[in-house]
Amino acid sequence: MTILTADAIGTLLDALRTEGIRVEAPGAGTAPYAHDAGTRASAPGSGPAVAFPASAAEVQAVVRAAASARIAIIPRGAGSGLSGGAVATPDQLVVSTERLTRIVEIAPADEIAVVEPGVINADLNAALAPYGLFYAPDPASYAISSIGGNIATNAGGLRCAKYGVTRESILALDVVLPDGELVSIGHRSLKGVTGYDLVSLLTGSEGTLGIVVSATVRTRPLPVARRTLSAFFPSTAEGAVALGAITASRVRPAVVEFLDEPSLDAIDRHSGTSLRARGAALVLVELDGFGIDEQTAELSAALHAAGGTVTAEPEEDAAVLWELRRSGRGLREGEWFVGGDVAVPKSRLPEVYAAFAEIERARGVRIAAVAHAGDGNLHPVVTRAIPAGGDPAHPDAALHDALEDIARLALSLGGTVTGEHGVGRVKRQLAALELPPRVVALHRALKDALDPHALLNPGTAF
Amino acid sequence: MTILTADAIGTLLDALRTEGIRVEAPGAGTAPYAHDAGTRASAPGSGPAVAFPASAAEVQAVVRAAASARIAIIPRGAGSGLSGGAVATPDQLVVSTERLTRIVEIAPADEIAVVEPGVINADLNAALAPYGLFYAPDPASYAISSIGGNIATNAGGLRCAKYGVTRESILALDVVLPDGELVSIGHRSLKGVTGYDLVSLLTGSEGTLGIVVSATVRTRPLPVARRTLSAFFPSTAEGAVALGAITASRVRPAVVEFLDEPSLDAIDRHSGTSLRARGAALVLVELDGFGIDEQTAELSAALHAAGGTVTAEPEEDAAVLWELRRSGRGLREGEWFVGGDVAVPKSRLPEVYAAFAEIERARGVRIAAVAHAGDGNLHPVVTRAIPAGGDPAHPDAALHDALEDIARLALSLGGTVTGEHGVGRVKRQLAALELPPRVVALHRALKDALDPHALLNPGTAF
Repeated sequence: MTILTADAIGTLLDALRTEGIRVEAPGAGTAPYAHDAGTRASAPGSGPAVAFPASAAEVQAVVRAAASARIAIIPRGAGSGLSGGAVATPDQLVVSTERLTRIVEIAPADEIAVVEPGVINADLNAALAPYGLFYAPDPASYAISSIGGNIATNAGGLRCAKYGVTRESILALDVVLPDGELVSIGHRSLKGVTGYDLVSLLTGSEGTLGIVVSATVRTRPLPVARRTLSAFFPSTAEGAVALGAITASRVRPAVVEFLDEPSLDAIDRHSGTSLRARGAALVLVELDGFGIDEQTAELSAALHAAGGTVTAEPEEDAAVLWELRRSGRGLREGEWFVGGDVAVPKSRLPEVYAAFAEIERARGVRIAAVAHAGDGNLHPVVTRAIPAGGDPAHPDAALHDALEDIARLALSLGGTVTGEHGVGRVKRQLAALELPPRVVALHRALKDALDPHALLNPGTAF
Repeated sequence: MTILTADAIGTLLDALRTEGIRVEAPGAGTAPYAHDAGTRASAPGSGPAVAFPASAAEVQAVVRAAASARIAIIPRGAGSGLSGGAVATPDQLVVSTERLTRIVEIAPADEIAVVEPGVINADLNAALAPYGLFYAPDPASYAISSIGGNIATNAGGLRCAKYGVTRESILALDVVLPDGELVSIGHRSLKGVTGYDLVSLLTGSEGTLGIVVSATVRTRPLPVARRTLSAFFPSTAEGAVALGAITASRVRPAVVEFLDEPSLDAIDRHSGTSLRARGAALVLVELDGFGIDEQTAELSAALHAAGGTVTAEPEEDAAVLWELRRSGRGLREGEWFVGGDVAVPKSRLPEVYAAFAEIERARGVRIAAVAHAGDGNLHPVVTRAIPAGGDPAHPDAALHDALEDIARLALSLGGTVTGEHGVGRVKRQLAALELPPRVVALHRALKDALDPHALLNPGTAF
């Protein structure tokens, strides 16, 4: 069976090579394609076959050939995902968009850009900046993740509360369907309601319905001003409650990040900073747009009234704080860790933080969580010291149990098990907690309708 | 055949009555349900059977009963649609959401409200105002259209360019499927990517996939300030070109309406105003939010530089202008008229206006168009004097031909045949111009997957 499959893949690769398409055979060289940023292997191992098409036509040719050989296709962007949504086994063919990196068009008068899927999020923004424009969706991985991957996961990020997730910035897509046909869906116009919203259906479908080969994305004018406010609180609990003061205000910041006490401790330990000297929880806000002084005054007053020590950060200090927030908390040697990305209705964030102590006790773990508090999306990191003889690549079940506790908690509060990373292969069990059988059946019906032979990314998402 | 159907419907209505569900038999009393605001009949005539469920459970019972009798179901909100998307023939059963009018919950701390589908858009906003909140999507019909109908059509409106269309404000839906089962899709949290985006798929599906019985919608804080700018231009062409100056600025108004020369003429004739004395084209802008003076200064300068006579309108004058814009242009006795809602990429608006003269000449019609210029969505109104003996209810083919010319033009510019009204029954031919066969096949596959017996709103959308 394995040998037959290997033969089939060898035949397929030969055929693609004949068509002038760059491919790499399974082996050590493709080991990275067996994993993503969330599913690193303990040992290098052997990877799957990978195709590197350089045009939409080549993507079509690859998909057609794989489809007719009934070989499963795993679409993959930059491989920076955290849920195992773009990882392949040796009997599958990865279709990488790494070579599809053209910014085809920037059209300021239409407020759009047209890009190939392999364009890195940060590169698009660098190209837009000279026009005074930006592309809003900014996953923390913006420096390494691709627009195609962002679309596949409907990626979130820090600015979503104000500017929306990836879906809100995607107007049109060119998509290679599972039989290799190319379709254009959506519009270059900002509005359009002809037929079902196929663009939204594809966005966040984690590579299970089609391969995006071109995206028309919405751009926005760079804000006329930006300002960073920090508000430190005496405890995680007080900081979490104070977030409600932002919601109750009339200000809608571009970014609202919440860092709890263990997260601040971790940053200080990792970066040699002394944030904890300023407080035990941090609400870090970026305001932008017109009336920046009015916004600053209203929000500062609100956070001060909520018990915060509020500072309008000078530009340099602000840059340091954002760098600390983005580059993360570091991990200690000798610790297992697993991470999550639940989301809850905004008002329930304090309950989530309050529940951590009991989960820590019950599971024998530690939990630290930063939150995109503007939209109720938390990133809990669960850690535990690796006991003697423990395998660093295989965290103890207690860590996964703690993550599941947090996921169940999020669901009980009206939230979701994944706010922005996607289900992939890693969170299928958690997704099963969220989606009732009839909703799963709807998913399957849609999948069967668009990919009847289940060729695209089998085993991912549901 | 007709008699059999009538019998089947009679039996169905009897069964529903027995369950305590309010129904109305086909006849003169239900004549309005054979039409919507865009498809008025010339004579009253006879209407279809109508069910008026008062709860989700009653909707389920109605759908179950109709499904087992294989009677087609036409979901209907307020009947204010313009594309014939909620109109029924005598062999069909209308399921009206008119009695599902509860505002179930307003939760400011979560930035959401939960409403039944029959809630009128304006009523929701009236209920939100005391909390300092609003619901952004504002179709021109906001005073009479329902949230459920807005969701079914993914309704647009004036404020979409800044706040997004209906879809961007819908977080979760309870939906009765074509077999009567009730599912909850989406999340109460602002973010969530577990599985396919079923909420977006249902939004804009024009009642062909399910009946929404509850919607969790996003609310926003009322802006701290609003200001109206008018900019008059010497000609339609100059005004249309000047719209680009707004796009090129860093200001994103809540509303940007463009009224061409014939539209201003029509308003003056209808309302006794003298807008034309101020210019031949009007760009009417509502700014909102923080920094209203900064915004006013930047945008006024941009519009002035583009050749406009710019006025920051005092509040009372602004109210009059918006009322004139919203309440419309009036129609002249003795004229046929048909209307459209194409959208184009923003930069192409001048080309659309420039093309009208040729279409008017070729088709022997007159065209006036206002545009939601912030998102490139135009509402052309095509008129022609009714000749002696002409039927006022049946406009000459030349009017429809002119609308099709405009639709083809919009498509040639990268736009769409319907920006916000939906396809319904009226625009199926135009939609066929837009959607290539494979995309139509995708639509059919999705429809078959979710409504295998084609019971919901057959003949609508595609």
